[in-house]
Amino acid sequence: MSRKPSALELVQSVTALPGYTSACGTEVVHAEPGTVHLRVRRRPDLLQFNGFFHGGVIAGLADYAAGAAVSTALPEDKITVTIDLQVNFVAPAQGNHLLARASAVQIGSTIAVARVDVVCDSSEGERLCSIATATLRVVSRAPSA
Amino acid sequence: MSRKPSALELVQSVTALPGYTSACGTEVVHAEPGTVHLRVRRRPDLLQFNGFFHGGVIAGLADYAAGAAVSTALPEDKITVTIDLQVNFVAPAQGNHLLARASAVQIGSTIAVARVDVVCDSSEGERLCSIATATLRVVSRAPSA
Amino acid sequence: MSRKPSALELVQSVTALPGYTSACGTEVVHAEPGTVHLRVRRRPDLLQFNGFFHGGVIAGLADYAAGAAVSTALPEDKITVTIDLQVNFVAPAQGNHLLARASAVQIGSTIAVARVDVVCDSSEGERLCSIATATLRVVSRAPSA
Amino acid sequence: MSRKPSALELVQSVTALPGYTSACGTEVVHAEPGTVHLRVRRRPDLLQFNGFFHGGVIAGLADYAAGAAVSTALPEDKITVTIDLQVNFVAPAQGNHLLARASAVQIGSTIAVARVDVVCDSSEGERLCSIATATLRVVSRAPSA
Repeated sequence: MSRKPSALELVQSVTALPGYTSACGTEVVHAEPGTVHLRVRRRPDLLQFNGFFHGGVIAGLADYAAGAAVSTALPEDKITVTIDLQVNFVAPAQGNHLLARASAVQIGSTIAVARVDVVCDSSEGERLCSIATATLRVVSRAPSA
Repeated sequence: MSRKPSALELVQSVTALPGYTSACGTEVVHAEPGTVHLRVRRRPDLLQFNGFFHGGVIAGLADYAAGAAVSTALPEDKITVTIDLQVNFVAPAQGNHLLARASAVQIGSTIAVARVDVVCDSSEGERLCSIATATLRVVSRAPSA
Repeated sequence: MSRKPSALELVQSVTALPGYTSACGTEVVHAEPGTVHLRVRRRPDLLQFNGFFHGGVIAGLADYAAGAAVSTALPEDKITVTIDLQVNFVAPAQGNHLLARASAVQIGSTIAVARVDVVCDSSEGERLCSIATATLRVVSRAPSA
Repeated sequence: MSRKPSALELVQSVTALPGYTSACGTEVVHAEPGTVHLRVRRRPDLLQFNGFFHGGVIAGLADYAAGAAVSTALPEDKITVTIDLQVNFVAPAQGNHLLARASAVQIGSTIAVARVDVVCDSSEGERLCSIATATLRVVSRAPSA
């Protein structure tokens, strides 16, 4: 009846909420405790003027994926807030989509860290375009009314 | 007739190009060589589900502002590409707008660095919500046809 | 008799404790709540093989200066632990000494952020060689026995 | 007679040069093109006053390991210079030694990126204490006289 939602259901429900993440068309590709994969498809309003995905879109996807990767490994009454995010743009983000693969590196009672690889697709297969590290704070979810 | 455009004209013309930056509604508030201030106004598709500006929007604005701050100090045939970006989220990004103030810290022939302060507005005045550092590569602008 | 030590006395006493910081010859140049300046003098064992100060020495000095800048602005029973550190090396660290100027950017009950400028001396005066940002956790000092 | 030195020989010879890295007692544990493992043993002058390895020592080891990992994958006339370094301290660096495992993530003609895991030893086996990302510039080795 009120079984605990799976990691996939949890991430999908949060991803569908109104706001930036759903407005970018973010799709949940995979979710298990500590690991989340998300995809964003190419769309003109997500690109730089040279046709590559914008760094802000990559950073936003990495940030959200990192938070999701950690959150799926936390107790239900805990969520994460990003403290800081570092993104290296290692190749132009070309192609039809971005795929972010985030994994929790360390989860403490107050601080957590996740790493993210962001790949894009190309004619030769997937290509690493960014790597990111996010430092997150673990906080209690505000009680619902 | 073909006078060199001012820093403000340069940043405004690039900001108006189709893509992510203009889709976010980015406005150029100030631009001089080495320093650029940009604003983004509150809009539902730029927010987290808790009503604060999303980290990706802050990161994207900081990234673009950093590149603009360096680019305005470069010769006309040079532009920048972001190598990496680090963003600290120091307070919730509430309010009606984000204002990013970017300044070039160092500009070399190959590498440049800029720092960015992102403030939001509140009933008590502006509030620092993020600080960022971007490392950029200085590259030759592709010749136009 | 047991007056509260000044920020300068506090930083000097911690800097003099046995360990890495004193072994590097770290000197406290200035300390007030939220701002600390530290110096390290050139010594063969602090250099890269090309004669510049090593990045690890710069990072270590920036880390310690950031923690000191925040700690001097905290209540006496609180100290800091570094969560993460980002350092940009913007110019070769030549000269006879490194001087790190750290300032607290934001101090919360759990998380604090400080920025650091590291300069070296040259025949033309001081030169910015690194900028750093440290994210710190504010923790209670372990009670002494 | 003048065969190309192996990656291990290359890293060992640079590590043995006078300066910070050898002064810390850095040992080369493993080196192949793109991957280098380095160790530093516990010594009073490498510790914080609480007995953990100092963040500067961790950062310096990660920086050097990252550069070595990339350098071993470059042509002989190229070396690296660190542009920036980001270190997350995920657990106290206790134990008898630090072991840094660095791997090149991307190597371009101008910019390279490496990731580093730093582990320490404990009674329960090795423990991840830091993760780092270094952005490096690929430059020509200065010709010897």
